Amino acid sequence: MSIPTSSVPASVLQARDIVTPAMRAAVGRLCPDMARIASYHHGWTDEFGIPASGSGKSLRPALVLLSAQATGAPAEEAVPAAVAVEFVHNFSLLHDDIMDADQERRHRPTAWTVFGRSAAILAGDALLIEAAAILAEQPRGGGAAAARLMSDTQRLITGQAADLEFERRGDVTLSECLAMVANKTGALFASACAVGAILVEAPAAVVRGLTGFGEHLGLAFQLVDDLLGIWGDPRRTGKPVLADLRSRKKSVPVVVALTAGTGASARLAELYFDPVPLPESELAEAATLIEEAGGRAWTEAEAARHLAAALDCLDRLALPSDVLDNFREIAYFVTDRSW
Amino acid sequence: MSIPTSSVPASVLQARDIVTPAMRAAVGRLCPDMARIASYHHGWTDEFGIPASGSGKSLRPALVLLSAQATGAPAEEAVPAAVAVEFVHNFSLLHDDIMDADQERRHRPTAWTVFGRSAAILAGDALLIEAAAILAEQPRGGGAAAARLMSDTQRLITGQAADLEFERRGDVTLSECLAMVANKTGALFASACAVGAILVEAPAAVVRGLTGFGEHLGLAFQLVDDLLGIWGDPRRTGKPVLADLRSRKKSVPVVVALTAGTGASARLAELYFDPVPLPESELAEAATLIEEAGGRAWTEAEAARHLAAALDCLDRLALPSDVLDNFREIAYFVTDRSW
Repeated sequence: MSIPTSSVPASVLQARDIVTPAMRAAVGRLCPDMARIASYHHGWTDEFGIPASGSGKSLRPALVLLSAQATGAPAEEAVPAAVAVEFVHNFSLLHDDIMDADQERRHRPTAWTVFGRSAAILAGDALLIEAAAILAEQPRGGGAAAARLMSDTQRLITGQAADLEFERRGDVTLSECLAMVANKTGALFASACAVGAILVEAPAAVVRGLTGFGEHLGLAFQLVDDLLGIWGDPRRTGKPVLADLRSRKKSVPVVVALTAGTGASARLAELYFDPVPLPESELAEAATLIEEAGGRAWTEAEAARHLAAALDCLDRLALPSDVLDNFREIAYFVTDRSW
Repeated sequence: MSIPTSSVPASVLQARDIVTPAMRAAVGRLCPDMARIASYHHGWTDEFGIPASGSGKSLRPALVLLSAQATGAPAEEAVPAAVAVEFVHNFSLLHDDIMDADQERRHRPTAWTVFGRSAAILAGDALLIEAAAILAEQPRGGGAAAARLMSDTQRLITGQAADLEFERRGDVTLSECLAMVANKTGALFASACAVGAILVEAPAAVVRGLTGFGEHLGLAFQLVDDLLGIWGDPRRTGKPVLADLRSRKKSVPVVVALTAGTGASARLAELYFDPVPLPESELAEAATLIEEAGGRAWTEAEAARHLAAALDCLDRLALPSDVLDNFREIAYFVTDRSW
């Protein structure tokens, strides 16, 4: 997505400046074939290896650095953790794009469409391995941080497996859908908020509080993303209008509406489970039906509830005021994505 | 491969008995979809989840347990390391089978042909993640062992990337080919011989010696495997006769022959780079040409050289005599695969 830089929290921009050189150095240690793909995927180079200007949003690295600062450690000490979390995130994007046959990411062709499926599978593997290696080789809390990141990454796999399974099923329940979202997005946000603190050996109570913040924030983030996937402005989301409905994604608003038991639910099911691609007019009708069946309002309320719960976790920790402010700013930023 | 049990070293059979329950327990902690695939891939169940009798050879777990025993630790302490190494091995098999479009492994359909590519990619990811998690969460040498295993696994990726690249190239040099083999097979054998010792905090000199043993043994193992891929008895290898030539694999004997500069080399290149599938008679001719150009003799000598170097590494370590005997027995077993 192209975000006006002015709206991005300063802590996110700073994290990008601090963490990107370490990410590039780590990618540079991979074998040349893998480095080329990882570099393309991160937006640093084009498909020929020529420098490009794009890059990700660095939300997760910002959370990692702040989590270390939460207990008074300098941000720099958490850089390996930030690199590891961002590599896990990008490993999952590389593999998910293959599984979902997605053609485009961040306005560019996905890595597998450029380099082939086999090479993109391997590049994802390489980033995942490097993430674990970077953390495990750190002294002090490195082993514990690596164990925590891998355990959250296993939840990510569980979420992706559920997502794949949902594609073949017409009877997905709301609680299954929410569990999938918690695993697929909540887990890595929770890790982003915990592993920096674990690496600098923060007290267990702080790690627990930050974990709660991250988990709720991840859920709020994904629920907002689900709303944007249906009602977001394509100029801002970078996705086509009604994109998630076109691909028949079983996102939270859709599952809420399908399982609400209203007349609109029944009509939505007719449209949604029709094997024929829907014309634009019926996509718009589906969006209206989801709203009528309560899918939009419920998801908005649930996102707000998780944002409040996230902020509540923060307030229970006696954080330095600048760290608290930066965490809060990111929380509002990622859940109010009208940009 | 079906091996007469009597010829398998006792230490390998014992390792299987000790390590398999821990592997099953770890697979049982994955989400049900991933557990089903991992269980099928390991040969514990059929595609419907019904118990089956097959399983791998447990060579690597045996090396891991012996490496811990090398410094007097009980084998049981190294079980998490043995599980981790075996999971990394099976992660790589799951992903490689997809990349190479292999239909069969251990006389059964490969996992991706049964469960689909996406699910098999995810199952490989799940095993890799679990391998890193299991080691990293161990006290004492867990973090260091995880870092070492991941760094060797990164070499495995480098080797597989080279292997993929070789398929598209007609000018692979012998040194490139040997580097690929060292990365693809040597690295994980080296890890198998090192991470158990690292986990129980063996002295650095012992870890170095065991690493050298493992690296040379892995090379010898793969060179013998390359010989069997051309001249092995199909009843014993479980592969069709001349399998590696049929798939135009650039294995070591082939690359030695292609780069030998003899008349046989030139004729072999004509056959090998012909895009049309070779009839059986020309496959047999190719095998003869490889032998005439010196590919068989060179590879046999190189395998013997690495076996000797591996044994020399062992002899330089003051190992307990039972551990030394068991290591030696495995070394002869994996390089004399006339069974």
